[in-house]
Amino acid sequence: MSSFDGLWASILDVGQHHSTRGYRRFAWGDADLTLREWFRSNAASRGMDVEEDRNGNLWAWWMPVGWTGDPKGAFVTGSHLDSVPDGGAFDGPLGVVSAFAAVDLLRERGVEPTIPIAVAAFSDEEGARFGVACVGSQLTTGALSPERALGLRDVDGVTLAEAMTKAGRAPQHVGADTALTDRVGVYVELHVEQGRALDLVDAPLAVASSIWPHGRWEFTFTGEANHAGATRLVDRRDPMLPFASSVHSARSAAALHDAVATFGKVQVLPNGANAIPSMVKAWLDARAADEQTLDSLVAHIEGEARKHCATDRVDLDVLVESVTPIVEFPSGPRERLVRSLAHLGDIPTLPTAAGHDAGILSAKVPTAMMFVRNPTGISHSPDEYAEPDDCNVGAHALADVMADWVTG
Amino acid sequence: MSSFDGLWASILDVGQHHSTRGYRRFAWGDADLTLREWFRSNAASRGMDVEEDRNGNLWAWWMPVGWTGDPKGAFVTGSHLDSVPDGGAFDGPLGVVSAFAAVDLLRERGVEPTIPIAVAAFSDEEGARFGVACVGSQLTTGALSPERALGLRDVDGVTLAEAMTKAGRAPQHVGADTALTDRVGVYVELHVEQGRALDLVDAPLAVASSIWPHGRWEFTFTGEANHAGATRLVDRRDPMLPFASSVHSARSAAALHDAVATFGKVQVLPNGANAIPSMVKAWLDARAADEQTLDSLVAHIEGEARKHCATDRVDLDVLVESVTPIVEFPSGPRERLVRSLAHLGDIPTLPTAAGHDAGILSAKVPTAMMFVRNPTGISHSPDEYAEPDDCNVGAHALADVMADWVTG
Repeated sequence: MSSFDGLWASILDVGQHHSTRGYRRFAWGDADLTLREWFRSNAASRGMDVEEDRNGNLWAWWMPVGWTGDPKGAFVTGSHLDSVPDGGAFDGPLGVVSAFAAVDLLRERGVEPTIPIAVAAFSDEEGARFGVACVGSQLTTGALSPERALGLRDVDGVTLAEAMTKAGRAPQHVGADTALTDRVGVYVELHVEQGRALDLVDAPLAVASSIWPHGRWEFTFTGEANHAGATRLVDRRDPMLPFASSVHSARSAAALHDAVATFGKVQVLPNGANAIPSMVKAWLDARAADEQTLDSLVAHIEGEARKHCATDRVDLDVLVESVTPIVEFPSGPRERLVRSLAHLGDIPTLPTAAGHDAGILSAKVPTAMMFVRNPTGISHSPDEYAEPDDCNVGAHALADVMADWVTG
Repeated sequence: MSSFDGLWASILDVGQHHSTRGYRRFAWGDADLTLREWFRSNAASRGMDVEEDRNGNLWAWWMPVGWTGDPKGAFVTGSHLDSVPDGGAFDGPLGVVSAFAAVDLLRERGVEPTIPIAVAAFSDEEGARFGVACVGSQLTTGALSPERALGLRDVDGVTLAEAMTKAGRAPQHVGADTALTDRVGVYVELHVEQGRALDLVDAPLAVASSIWPHGRWEFTFTGEANHAGATRLVDRRDPMLPFASSVHSARSAAALHDAVATFGKVQVLPNGANAIPSMVKAWLDARAADEQTLDSLVAHIEGEARKHCATDRVDLDVLVESVTPIVEFPSGPRERLVRSLAHLGDIPTLPTAAGHDAGILSAKVPTAMMFVRNPTGISHSPDEYAEPDDCNVGAHALADVMADWVTG
């Protein structure tokens, strides 16, 4: 059994729901705290010093022999350990497990790093509990203010500040941490692919070119509550109708723009079986290869939704909830990755439509990403999967990149 | 100011939400208990004895002079005092207020009844709190078992049994009450119309011919949870798509069948903005003029939904939650009502697509219904309305019917 396989097996039980088999690893909850202990114990057994930074991100350091003072120019690799509700095993943990496995491989090979190495696990990447994604990396880079972060609430009304305090942390210290980002020479994140591009070209591994620009828009369809039995069809102003039409408009517009658009979250008022709704609120998630296409896609969907609303005598409000610009990963680190992996042949270069900590960190430090093949493309689901062979290819490739970088 | 106007004004503040202006009068809650006191106080000021039966329904008795023993062959009129969430002022209370006003009119006219009169307010007609409609009348007639009723839970997990106990009632005594229904000679319910038929024919008042057969079906669309960004359109099994198509199929099929069909309640899993849903559960409310048409309507909608699911590679389960057969109001009481109102000219006879306590009681006692014009047709909404003049016509007509019946 490889170092990767043993590490991987040691994490599989944590936070898995007994009936859905999906993972429920939410920031500062029991499973998250267990995974933090798992991280500390794996760092300790490798003689790596662990620090949890002021924002809850974990760093395990392998310092060059004879290095004195703070780390600088470090090769940092990792990902996150939390999950979406009923998520899969790979999204996040694959990058952290592969990072420790790569450290083991370097030591087996007798590599002596001349620059510091860190394995990192960023806090609350999925935002499953408090609603905002990449909280740990966003706080560290200053993209998210401490005031906004600490006031975020989970479904039970618990704030992030309260959850951190309960977990024995000091929320008053969260915030931008340039002393920490100044230590980073490059951040390389290995992640399971969340699509089928590698399966389609029959390759186990890719490097990332960019993260698609993406955003979230809140569509509020307001009609008129009425009796579902006694109200004639012609007298209705039922907001469910233009919402339903807009679901199909979003799908058609996405196809037209070679993009994706999804209504995955819906709130209905009063949500009674015998009541025509007064309101349907629905969140549009839209992503495209470039910002102009994304703008055109969303404008198209909103325009169609307005036509449907006019037909059905329903009012529409559209609010921008968040828009994240495109992240172009810098060519320097990417080309260096590809060179260190020349022995594997051509490595495909792919964009991704999913957000990642690497995208957030790229505002402050050089970043790169590697993807491991996902044969079904399924992600954010208990059915998320990657072949053990491909995972081992990923861990070895990460070791190759690490070895090249820290001895180069 | 007429007796009706004063009575009406005395109830308007109870349970009205300060911002929506809708009513939130839910079974055994504070507003409901306040309304029960209002009922007792109005009965007492008229010298009518009040009893709350074992199922929480209120009865105020006006016994003929010299009557001894239990009431028998009574003329009972009333409705209910509870509301849907953010409901209107008229649905329910109009019938109870009109009943007390009719008693006042009979006394002004010096009518001496020769058979007993009761004003009734049935408990929990809307089912807003515990999910099942007409709980009071269903328990009394034996249509709902005590075991099922007492175990019903509200959104906070409180059972009906617990809610009744907290309100000082004895839930162990709920159940069928033939001694009570044996007292009833006829039940006449006056109700605000929940459609625009009277407005269209420019009449203030109608009598009911029937209650349309109606039911509720639970449609469960099961797809595959996946990442809303990284999953290609062609790889998706998104249950929101066939649900959206089915919303339109239901509307088209309803138009085709001269019926109504509504998806007004929806539950989405995991309901995350960045997740393709694994499941969309939606409740279909469907009603038609006769049972054969209703069967054909629902079969048509289910057939279309299955086609949409096949297209989108989504699974569908359809469960019958409840089906209520047609209620044909008996011709005897209806014709007698029309005769007592001959001085008002032709009274339209209308079916209704809404359920009522009168429909439940018709299984055990002779029943009839009267509708007061609703100029917008809006119901189950703060905008529900009836003109004061029409309400007074209704109260006077109810007095005419009552006078004819109890002295005839």
